[in-house]
Amino acid sequence: MKDLSFPKAGLTSDQLKGTQSRENGNSQEFIGFATLPEQVHRKSVKRGFDFTLMVVGESGLGKSTLINSLFLTDLYKERKVPTAESMVEKTVAIEKKTIEIEERGVKLRLTVVDTPGFGDAVNCEEGWKSVERYVDEQFNKFFQDESGLNRKNIQDHRVHCCLYFIPPYGHGLRQLDVEFMKRLHRKVNIVPVIAKADTLTKSEIKKLKANILNDIEDNKVKIYQFPECDSDEDEDFKQQDRELKASIPFAVIGSNCIIEVAGKKMRGRQYPWGIVEVENSAHCDFVKLRTMLISTHMQDMKEVTQDIHYENFRAQCISQMQQVAMKERNKLKRESAANFDHVGDADKLLQQKDEEIRRMQEMLSQMQEKLKESGKDQASALGLEPAGKRDSVVNV
Amino acid sequence: MKDLSFPKAGLTSDQLKGTQSRENGNSQEFIGFATLPEQVHRKSVKRGFDFTLMVVGESGLGKSTLINSLFLTDLYKERKVPTAESMVEKTVAIEKKTIEIEERGVKLRLTVVDTPGFGDAVNCEEGWKSVERYVDEQFNKFFQDESGLNRKNIQDHRVHCCLYFIPPYGHGLRQLDVEFMKRLHRKVNIVPVIAKADTLTKSEIKKLKANILNDIEDNKVKIYQFPECDSDEDEDFKQQDRELKASIPFAVIGSNCIIEVAGKKMRGRQYPWGIVEVENSAHCDFVKLRTMLISTHMQDMKEVTQDIHYENFRAQCISQMQQVAMKERNKLKRESAANFDHVGDADKLLQQKDEEIRRMQEMLSQMQEKLKESGKDQASALGLEPAGKRDSVVNV
Repeated sequence: MKDLSFPKAGLTSDQLKGTQSRENGNSQEFIGFATLPEQVHRKSVKRGFDFTLMVVGESGLGKSTLINSLFLTDLYKERKVPTAESMVEKTVAIEKKTIEIEERGVKLRLTVVDTPGFGDAVNCEEGWKSVERYVDEQFNKFFQDESGLNRKNIQDHRVHCCLYFIPPYGHGLRQLDVEFMKRLHRKVNIVPVIAKADTLTKSEIKKLKANILNDIEDNKVKIYQFPECDSDEDEDFKQQDRELKASIPFAVIGSNCIIEVAGKKMRGRQYPWGIVEVENSAHCDFVKLRTMLISTHMQDMKEVTQDIHYENFRAQCISQMQQVAMKERNKLKRESAANFDHVGDADKLLQQKDEEIRRMQEMLSQMQEKLKESGKDQASALGLEPAGKRDSVVNV
Repeated sequence: MKDLSFPKAGLTSDQLKGTQSRENGNSQEFIGFATLPEQVHRKSVKRGFDFTLMVVGESGLGKSTLINSLFLTDLYKERKVPTAESMVEKTVAIEKKTIEIEERGVKLRLTVVDTPGFGDAVNCEEGWKSVERYVDEQFNKFFQDESGLNRKNIQDHRVHCCLYFIPPYGHGLRQLDVEFMKRLHRKVNIVPVIAKADTLTKSEIKKLKANILNDIEDNKVKIYQFPECDSDEDEDFKQQDRELKASIPFAVIGSNCIIEVAGKKMRGRQYPWGIVEVENSAHCDFVKLRTMLISTHMQDMKEVTQDIHYENFRAQCISQMQQVAMKERNKLKRESAANFDHVGDADKLLQQKDEEIRRMQEMLSQMQEKLKESGKDQASALGLEPAGKRDSVVNV
């Protein structure tokens, strides 16, 4: 199989270490910046990766088992299965687990966000809200961090993908599913999966998938869109891309059991009528889901989260902040202006009072003159002095 | 030569296309996220790269020739060499050229920022200022863009590297060189080069390099620091890294001429005593500079620009903005409060005036009583009425 899809394929280790290859004199017109993707590659390996995956769906659909199957870990060994009674009342508790796994020198900090009670309670409204709130909170945290003074060591907890588990026993999406997806589809990459697909025959899976896709289209739900495959990719890659796209929603089966058949170990489920092999693509889409989610589109989902979902959130935040700032400014300005008006009124009143006082002083002076003429003793007996001699009659 | 330095080396094309390799059943415990660096690699190739290189140094040191030699282009074919007369007076004109070049499928948008008059004028102060201003302007532009509502398609014109040309005929750094570097070293990655090194013998180069490094240390100039080489790199890479570090400041020779010697074509300069081969590491450090600048450290210089120089600038910007905002807020609040005080004062004054008016009215009443007693005709002749009968003597 030829790998034409990666330009690095053409670069030898010698070319990467520019000096040697150039001194061999056989690549005189080689500048060397073709190593830039390698430089980015190296940096990314050194830095390590992180990814946050949210799983949503009611209890018993095999969410934890699928996560364990995907990442070959046992994230949920300490979980207690809740009783039906506790499930009716309970609110959606968001459970977050982070593991650091390494594969061929590549480090991944994987965070799985589980919403264990989702869809179990009688009223699902609370479930949507708490999931939506969680997603928003992560965006908000990142927005605060990104806008802060010190941007070193920002932890990115934004939800990069939401695996939405659809029960295998319905005939398509339920109102609940549609409502949930529509609330979240502009905030997170939704990847729908049909859970526990080992209860469905091939033709049943085909029919259920078609119904679900119809419901998605009819209700204008936006699930995660695979990017267009570049025309310069090789044929194998294009073929794989077509198969992945054609398999949505992925019908999956998880298993924590390793079964040995004819010396070959495999994850599977043993029934009296046969063995379901989780990683057999004739049995289910588990491998396709894993390929898409981890090997081929993990980075794209991170970028869609950053460039589209987060940017939407950020734009809304900024608009709101601008409105609040504008209001506050206007309020301060209004207060300031109102006080100015008040001052204007007060000044005017003061002038009027002064004028009144001036006229009264005149009158008093005149009256005193009269009184002097008519009888000086009477005026002095009243203790009156001409008001004009004092700045103010008020003792300050 | 083994390439242990890239983890991807261990990944086959099959593993990248998860499906196939897993179905072969020979990598059961392979999750698939080891392809993450490949996914980043692919994305980076699709997006393309950009890099902005600034060249600083006086005319005649071969800046344009070196750039042409480095990027195998002729960026400056239309340039007119200015006369000495025009150089004495001229200010530093920043000249920016962008070319798009492609190498093995990797696209690079290279911007070369030239400061043609730097150091030529009698007063160099203006030169530093305009270069500093240019660097700040690019940071500021990026800051505005990054803080804006729409962050798609942001063009990054920040200067990622400044090649500083030191003349070969001095005995180290001149005061001018030190001053320039100290003004810029916290804003841009400075890579010093000894220009036109074909005028120096091996021992002269060694001595000049030592002097320059001493001057850099004595004057606490911070030139671009090569990152530490990871301990898990292979020995060849470590050796190359040591050689690069040991060659600073790179002594370089540029040439636009291709010379053919014994059927082999090379960039060089033909003297009566021999041919200088630009790409011969026994002749000069041109290949080392090119390796560092382009093949191995271009991405690191971009990240240092982003994470250190730009973050410094951004932090300063935010502090200043906060101070301005605080001042404005305080001003508005002060105005508002001052007006309140003013209002308080005015109210108090009005009360005092009212009190004064009340007392004067009392006095007038008493006097009128007296006058009535002493002679009713006199009072009426003055047109006086008891003030208590009117709310205000002022006609409103």
